[in-house]
Amino acid sequence: HYVISHAKPFWLHLFYFLVVSLVGYMVLKVNNNLNNLDLFFTSVSATTASSMSTLEMEVFSNDQLIVMTILMLLGGEVFTSMLGLQLRRCNFSSFQTPKVDNSHVIIDNNSIELGTINQLSISTSDDSESYSKYYNNSIKVLGYVVLGYLLVVHAIGSTLVTIYMTLTPSANNVLKSKGLVLNTFSFFVIVSTFSSCGFIPTNENMIIFRGNPGLLLIVLPFVFLGNTLYPSLLRLVIWVLERFIKKKEFNYMLNNYKEMGYDHLLSSKECWYLTGTTIAFLVLQVVVFCAMEWSSGVMEGMNSYQKFVGSVFQTANTRHSGESIVDLSLVSPAILVLFIIMMYLPAYTSFLPISDEQEETPEKSIKMKKKKKVVENMVLSQLSYLVIFVIIICITERKSLKDDPLNFNVLNIVFEVISAYGNVGLSTGYNCKRRLNSDKNCSDKLYGFSGRWSNAGKCVLILVMFFGRLKKFNMHGGKSWKML
Amino acid sequence: HYVISHAKPFWLHLFYFLVVSLVGYMVLKVNNNLNNLDLFFTSVSATTASSMSTLEMEVFSNDQLIVMTILMLLGGEVFTSMLGLQLRRCNFSSFQTPKVDNSHVIIDNNSIELGTINQLSISTSDDSESYSKYYNNSIKVLGYVVLGYLLVVHAIGSTLVTIYMTLTPSANNVLKSKGLVLNTFSFFVIVSTFSSCGFIPTNENMIIFRGNPGLLLIVLPFVFLGNTLYPSLLRLVIWVLERFIKKKEFNYMLNNYKEMGYDHLLSSKECWYLTGTTIAFLVLQVVVFCAMEWSSGVMEGMNSYQKFVGSVFQTANTRHSGESIVDLSLVSPAILVLFIIMMYLPAYTSFLPISDEQEETPEKSIKMKKKKKVVENMVLSQLSYLVIFVIIICITERKSLKDDPLNFNVLNIVFEVISAYGNVGLSTGYNCKRRLNSDKNCSDKLYGFSGRWSNAGKCVLILVMFFGRLKKFNMHGGKSWKML
Ligand SMILES: [K+]
Ligand SMILES: [K+]
Repeated sequence: HYVISHAKPFWLHLFYFLVVSLVGYMVLKVNNNLNNLDLFFTSVSATTASSMSTLEMEVFSNDQLIVMTILMLLGGEVFTSMLGLQLRRCNFSSFQTPKVDNSHVIIDNNSIELGTINQLSISTSDDSESYSKYYNNSIKVLGYVVLGYLLVVHAIGSTLVTIYMTLTPSANNVLKSKGLVLNTFSFFVIVSTFSSCGFIPTNENMIIFRGNPGLLLIVLPFVFLGNTLYPSLLRLVIWVLERFIKKKEFNYMLNNYKEMGYDHLLSSKECWYLTGTTIAFLVLQVVVFCAMEWSSGVMEGMNSYQKFVGSVFQTANTRHSGESIVDLSLVSPAILVLFIIMMYLPAYTSFLPISDEQEETPEKSIKMKKKKKVVENMVLSQLSYLVIFVIIICITERKSLKDDPLNFNVLNIVFEVISAYGNVGLSTGYNCKRRLNSDKNCSDKLYGFSGRWSNAGKCVLILVMFFGRLKKFNMHGGKSWKML
Repeated sequence: HYVISHAKPFWLHLFYFLVVSLVGYMVLKVNNNLNNLDLFFTSVSATTASSMSTLEMEVFSNDQLIVMTILMLLGGEVFTSMLGLQLRRCNFSSFQTPKVDNSHVIIDNNSIELGTINQLSISTSDDSESYSKYYNNSIKVLGYVVLGYLLVVHAIGSTLVTIYMTLTPSANNVLKSKGLVLNTFSFFVIVSTFSSCGFIPTNENMIIFRGNPGLLLIVLPFVFLGNTLYPSLLRLVIWVLERFIKKKEFNYMLNNYKEMGYDHLLSSKECWYLTGTTIAFLVLQVVVFCAMEWSSGVMEGMNSYQKFVGSVFQTANTRHSGESIVDLSLVSPAILVLFIIMMYLPAYTSFLPISDEQEETPEKSIKMKKKKKVVENMVLSQLSYLVIFVIIICITERKSLKDDPLNFNVLNIVFEVISAYGNVGLSTGYNCKRRLNSDKNCSDKLYGFSGRWSNAGKCVLILVMFFGRLKKFNMHGGKSWKML
């Protein structure tokens, strides 16, 4: 207990994801002879909500699919953030520390998790008794709100999918022909989409359902509910609850969002801009995607309505669910480059005009710098690490890059690495027909490009997935590199 | 005169480079029927010190080579910075403004060009009479120092090259067989290298001289003299002059490097770290390059000594001269990715540990923000612009990307764009043998990959070269994009 409350959040997170991945791997391993590395890769991929794949999905039994559903649930950002809230509550109730110490703890948490300290926490420390009470209650209530949100969203989602699949013969036939259990499928798809994982129990991912725009439209909102629009919706839920239940804690949360120390509770202004940015990115992508691919053959056999819904679904999934209704290897390079950028951008990337209120307080920045100076000087920026990963994979896969240049090119490798880093899971795949020297042993498989990599390359990609899942802890790296 | 002294530095620079490019284009156009766009491209490429090429170099006559030498001289960073110094001197002598106004002008210049204001300029404003005198004299003396540096470096360099070419039959024969004039060649090569342009009068660039490590070793220092190591050497020169001539102005320059408002005058600490970073990058590149390419066939026919010198020369040229001793299309992708990063990094990129002295003064940052808020909110970061350029080129060249995927791949396009942005000039080129559908009309040419692009693509690359040459004015873009 002491360890948990004193460990740095980064190590706590890393430990959590490692343990879940390992346990997941061991459970998945029971009673089958699939490749160990590929199974661990899949477990990491599910836990970090990446959905990178080196195995076809239909090799997994119904039981294994249920295990993966649990892994995705445990690894999703909303769920882990709820765990964090519960953990903080435990810390508070067991460590009833005096006033000064108490406020110190708060500042510490904030400064690490949010990178900002709100002055209010200092100004209100006079009436610390009532403050502390409010704070504790608010954390508790917030925990319940998040839990309720999770339960309601999953219940509605899986019910809707179940109803659609039952009523639509074309979709239902797919499940029957593949021997998938309806309830498992519904719950798997919703958990996977809400946690931004993006695994689908079919080999073809969503491509096989691209003639079912109804299903795509049901699943589409869940891409945003647990990801880019989560802060806005959480704030909306709290605001509605405050209106109807009129508990003071809701009001406290809305006004003291920074002191709550919950990463996903943002100011109303930030929520608006974040929502706007999300929509702008989606519109931009849909426009470019439709302009380039409407009649390029990528969406062959679909009517205009299906094409439009498909385009919206496909481009929404670049941030960061990674479900797919087209074969990305056929998509034009301009779109792939655009997708790489969208996959790279973290969920809460937002246009936010600079205003004077947002100026960092000078005392804080100096305080932070003094504390972290040594570590900070060693740390590189996110992009530098990604470049290093790409170079390493170019070295591990150098033979294939030379012999099979149409499948193994740097664009596809960068796409795969950024996809893993962004925990997206899109992949350009591999196609035996694109080989320059045809090989009779080559058979097309419906898993990601990384499934064709060497073991060393796969191991690097596992690292990248962990690195991407924990990226919020290294957002400010590379500060000691200056352009003079 | 009024216009010049009041225009913003950015527009002044843009105007200068545009005019020089246009004049250069018109002079190059006299008496020949080369393609207009290609000639303008070449003129821009020489003026912005990029050395991107869409024409083979040997199509140019001796006169045209002399014109290009002048363009490269006029466009080099050291020369333009010297012009800036002269311009500032004129402003000062003609506008004898009162004390307060005067110091205001200084702060303005600094804040725009350096992004920093030194507090000393305010503290010394009491004895502004002597301060102003020192300041004016120092600017004047600094102008002479830079001019002297330019003249001495070019005189020594071209003499050394001339001597080497005269004494070495193998190198001399190349000139004879290509009908190049020795003096033009020597001066062209040194001007080109010192200004970090990287044009060489031979079609093959430096590949044809890779058996002459002596020539490479003579040229190598000039890659650094006008680029990454210029601030350190300038400071060294001033320090030596101060030791021997003991004029107070030298001392003033060394101590008040920020007030001088000369971008290339850095603190002694910054110079040390910059030198260290430059060497570290070079060593890193040499190690990786030798590890990957020592026996890969890229440097076939060279002995170990030649290979080592060649590797050092090649990797030094990624920042940012862009001369080449190997065919980059044969180099492994890992190296190309590494080169892309090195080309991207501006010359004065430095590891600089964070220390408390360097904290920005809070008043300043607020002041700056207020002034530029509107513009700042609109501006994107450098990388965003580059991605947009890459996407545009992927669209303009979409047909070739589909039909000729081994020559036209996104890596090569990114390489070309970053090479133009970094004003480097390296290129992966184009090889008819790599075409999937062989074309009898295709003949191999010794110019850059962009020479095979559509006119639209070439125009975008011209923009990128200007954008890259003026990058110092947009180093702080994208500030209104936050990762919440
Ligand atoms: K995902
Ligand atoms: K250059």
